[in-house]
Amino acid sequence: MNVIEKLSALRALMQEHQLSAYVVPGTDPHASEYMAEHWMETTWLSGFKGEAGTVVVTLSEAKLFTDSRYYLQAGIELQGTTIELMRASDIDCPSVNEWLKSVLREGEHVGVNPEMFSVDDYQKMRNELSDQRLQLDSIDLIRPLWTEGRPAIPQAPLYAYDELYAGESVESKMCRIREQMRQKKADAMIVSALDEIAWLLNIRGYDVEYNPVVISYLVLEQERCTLFVLPQKVDAAAADYLCAHHIDVKDYEDVFAYLSSLRGTVLYDGATVNEALYEQLTCATVNAKSPILIDKSHKNAVEIEGERKAMLQDCVALTRFFKWLEEEAFTNGSTQTEWSLMERLHAFRLMGNHFVEESFGTIAGYNGNGAIVHYAATPDNCAEVRPEGMLLLDSGGQYLDGTTDITRTVWLGGTIPEQAKRDYTYVLKGHLALGHARWPRGTRGNQLDALAKQFMWQAGITFGHGTGHGVGHFLGCHEGPQNVRTDMNPTVLEEGQICSNEPGIYRTGQWGIRIENLVTVIPVERTDACTTDDRFLTWETLTLCYYDTSLIDMSLMTADEVNQINAYHERVYTLTAPLLNDDEQKWLKNKCKPIHL
Amino acid sequence: MNVIEKLSALRALMQEHQLSAYVVPGTDPHASEYMAEHWMETTWLSGFKGEAGTVVVTLSEAKLFTDSRYYLQAGIELQGTTIELMRASDIDCPSVNEWLKSVLREGEHVGVNPEMFSVDDYQKMRNELSDQRLQLDSIDLIRPLWTEGRPAIPQAPLYAYDELYAGESVESKMCRIREQMRQKKADAMIVSALDEIAWLLNIRGYDVEYNPVVISYLVLEQERCTLFVLPQKVDAAAADYLCAHHIDVKDYEDVFAYLSSLRGTVLYDGATVNEALYEQLTCATVNAKSPILIDKSHKNAVEIEGERKAMLQDCVALTRFFKWLEEEAFTNGSTQTEWSLMERLHAFRLMGNHFVEESFGTIAGYNGNGAIVHYAATPDNCAEVRPEGMLLLDSGGQYLDGTTDITRTVWLGGTIPEQAKRDYTYVLKGHLALGHARWPRGTRGNQLDALAKQFMWQAGITFGHGTGHGVGHFLGCHEGPQNVRTDMNPTVLEEGQICSNEPGIYRTGQWGIRIENLVTVIPVERTDACTTDDRFLTWETLTLCYYDTSLIDMSLMTADEVNQINAYHERVYTLTAPLLNDDEQKWLKNKCKPIHL
Repeated sequence: MNVIEKLSALRALMQEHQLSAYVVPGTDPHASEYMAEHWMETTWLSGFKGEAGTVVVTLSEAKLFTDSRYYLQAGIELQGTTIELMRASDIDCPSVNEWLKSVLREGEHVGVNPEMFSVDDYQKMRNELSDQRLQLDSIDLIRPLWTEGRPAIPQAPLYAYDELYAGESVESKMCRIREQMRQKKADAMIVSALDEIAWLLNIRGYDVEYNPVVISYLVLEQERCTLFVLPQKVDAAAADYLCAHHIDVKDYEDVFAYLSSLRGTVLYDGATVNEALYEQLTCATVNAKSPILIDKSHKNAVEIEGERKAMLQDCVALTRFFKWLEEEAFTNGSTQTEWSLMERLHAFRLMGNHFVEESFGTIAGYNGNGAIVHYAATPDNCAEVRPEGMLLLDSGGQYLDGTTDITRTVWLGGTIPEQAKRDYTYVLKGHLALGHARWPRGTRGNQLDALAKQFMWQAGITFGHGTGHGVGHFLGCHEGPQNVRTDMNPTVLEEGQICSNEPGIYRTGQWGIRIENLVTVIPVERTDACTTDDRFLTWETLTLCYYDTSLIDMSLMTADEVNQINAYHERVYTLTAPLLNDDEQKWLKNKCKPIHL
Repeated sequence: MNVIEKLSALRALMQEHQLSAYVVPGTDPHASEYMAEHWMETTWLSGFKGEAGTVVVTLSEAKLFTDSRYYLQAGIELQGTTIELMRASDIDCPSVNEWLKSVLREGEHVGVNPEMFSVDDYQKMRNELSDQRLQLDSIDLIRPLWTEGRPAIPQAPLYAYDELYAGESVESKMCRIREQMRQKKADAMIVSALDEIAWLLNIRGYDVEYNPVVISYLVLEQERCTLFVLPQKVDAAAADYLCAHHIDVKDYEDVFAYLSSLRGTVLYDGATVNEALYEQLTCATVNAKSPILIDKSHKNAVEIEGERKAMLQDCVALTRFFKWLEEEAFTNGSTQTEWSLMERLHAFRLMGNHFVEESFGTIAGYNGNGAIVHYAATPDNCAEVRPEGMLLLDSGGQYLDGTTDITRTVWLGGTIPEQAKRDYTYVLKGHLALGHARWPRGTRGNQLDALAKQFMWQAGITFGHGTGHGVGHFLGCHEGPQNVRTDMNPTVLEEGQICSNEPGIYRTGQWGIRIENLVTVIPVERTDACTTDDRFLTWETLTLCYYDTSLIDMSLMTADEVNQINAYHERVYTLTAPLLNDDEQKWLKNKCKPIHL
């Protein structure tokens, strides 16, 4: 079927079920950042391949709502489909619900697959539609249509994640989580976020790109723990492991029947647990932030040490890459593209210990492409890179001992515009101010956000993405609940949490500048300069890669900032040099040489 | 009756009404910061004279909940009353509701006077008590008991506040507010916050200390506006004024009957409108932030210019005071106390144009007393001040053209401890960083809070009060909705809002340091250094009083900060000198002389 035929088949089903609209939200049942192809329903239905988009179909119209990252791509991919693009980032674009309310009449019904909506999102949609007396119906109309060629749910094996890396046994984690369930008077908890399941059970898998998770559901009870997973994913070793830890295994689809049999009180996190699961429950429920989400964010000493090691491997790869870029990439008539740089960086990462895969799609943005925040070069669509201008490189790795994420922006050659130096320096000063911040316990990330922006704000510049996101441990490169950003978030920063520190400045068509380290929360040591008790926290910087000092406008720097850079570069050199050969050491030594006002 | 007799009479009434507890919260029906004596029920019942305290009486026990400011005072004043002190600032002290739930049995009833609770607070209390199946009953048991010697509701005359000062007509304000009511589909709005009524009607009064408000209620309808006020407060001139602006006048107590007759939809702000008013309504309601609260916070050009003038008068008074303190206070055997300084400062303020009264009780905290954040010296209980050590002076005035609030901390003589210099400099650096901040539109005050704290945080120091509060225009010295503090507050900072900028450091028994200016939000002018559009905002500093540079540790200062101080001191001198005599000019010139790194 082509898109027009699919829409027509969908509309026939809608009429059969007396639905005036059907919404396909571009999500999966696990609130995942990276989805298996099995759940790419928006792509199947509309032909649009972007990572974020909602298709809304009425009997007479079809719309794709997507954000400005994908306007161009959607415009091309929707040609000839009769689906119209709704530019969701535009200020005058209605939301999906607003649009539905504007085209439907009171009493009409809207259908959605409840597996694709978190309980909170589903309730919100239902409430908003009820203003106009529209009904929301739970029904999956894609499954009966997408029969041919639908990729199966991934069946990659799951494996035990060694306690040597995890730093805590399954039993110990379960004991802590069960205690928190008891405090909330919950007899059972549903877990559908894949990284939460992987963390709790010390398991990992290969089901989706970038995140080593296992597609599954989990029901944790006080006396029982049941993992719902396709049986073919559990080989003998995995079965032994699960059995040894008293984890019962049932088929993935059996979760629905299991939930309907639960008694007592069930805890669920409405932000991640999907509506279809919730609709099975017939007992009392509590909607609360997942205790796993919170506990997972507090890395233990083994996880932190693993992150240090992973980051060191990553920084060695980047150092080698930048040396290659400076010394070899353009010699003997070699030419480069953003894509070829990404491949080369991948090759350097592959040389590292315990490297498994990238933790997200590398962003190599040359000059103006660096200003596109979610830029993704492809082999067919990427810029040629020459030994001049600016390169923004944001990448990360999944290592058995940790997950990394690092951005460096470097100047490749030619005269540096004064504005570029100023921009780089504002970003660097903000990055240093946030990275060296101290704060009293009880402080939220959004209270620190302005520290990273204060200098660019003086120049009338700001940026739209978060300044810092949580990072998992050999799990998601983006995780909650903590972050450093403008938005209100009640989560306070606590010891052992890992965050990125990544302010940026973006000039359309000219350059993008972002500098990103990973940092972890530690207590401030009591010193002469810090006179009070242990109430204060600060960051330890995990990332060990030099900053491009050629881009610094020294007239904007303070003595303190110069000292911070020199101390950091000394630490970078000391810790990475033992992993480098003589040539590489010499090259890095020069990059790390002290700067002066 | 003494306290024991009053408690006994109250308990008899409680039993008559089958109440197991009665709560007297120490508030008034208008959610006022400063109350008329008529409503000081906690003081009448318990003998405790502090400004914040809740008395909870059961049939067998009586408790006063108050915060750490008043522990000492309450301990003394409660002696022999059988009322026990509950130290509400202590981490293990239960809240009033928690305590009630711990001592009462399921099904028992708790009584409160609904006039003394905002709708939001009442609902919260009812919800919390319902966990334990306790019932909340609306009943005023103090009125029948406090018959003898109860001060009347103030009867001072109300007067029209000249549009020359207000900058906008009543008609124009009402038109804007009615439009916002229409947007919320409200036919009427209840207003009980006294500063909101005064602002909307351009009236002022003398009913309470420090705030020139008129005790009244207001019901604004689309076609009608009704002020509920004691008739003796409305003299012929006031009656003419109200009539000319089509404001109907009814007796204060008539508001209840009037509300019960309202039809359509009524808007109320549950944060300020009291439960007794709400209970009268039989029609549809909308609980929403008061549109007056928000509009009032955006000062018009006349109000801002008035604030500039008022602040100038205030700063001239402070300059004269500090000159007197340095040159005359301790000569010829004169001695001083905190109280005598307060009196002298008042005398200097009285010399100013349009001065009406103080805008709050002056805080003159000498040495260790400066570390008590809400310190209030009295004639009988105040420290002797000598020409040595630290003086924190926080004061403000109500002028016809504006409300002021200023804090300066000065060194009176003797050798300055290095720690005192460091503390002063951390406070000053934070005060400068916040005062010179720029930020994109859409930024909330709590995003800027860390700018004021970043330097003291580096030294492991913080403070517990807000960094900045909104300030009214010849109204409350503290007003919302904007502020700069740790707490989450969704209000964004907008042009024309006035805030204080007052970081501090407090060392128990040693000294308190606070530096406070008033600042108002203005757009950033486009200059070479600020390259983007008009999205950015900054502050104009309204306060014009020198900083004590003898307390600065220059080794902690940057060149930028030194330039900021020198530029400010030049402005202070230029603008205040024309109001000073030759001697005063010379003295101030020296205080404002440039400092150097």
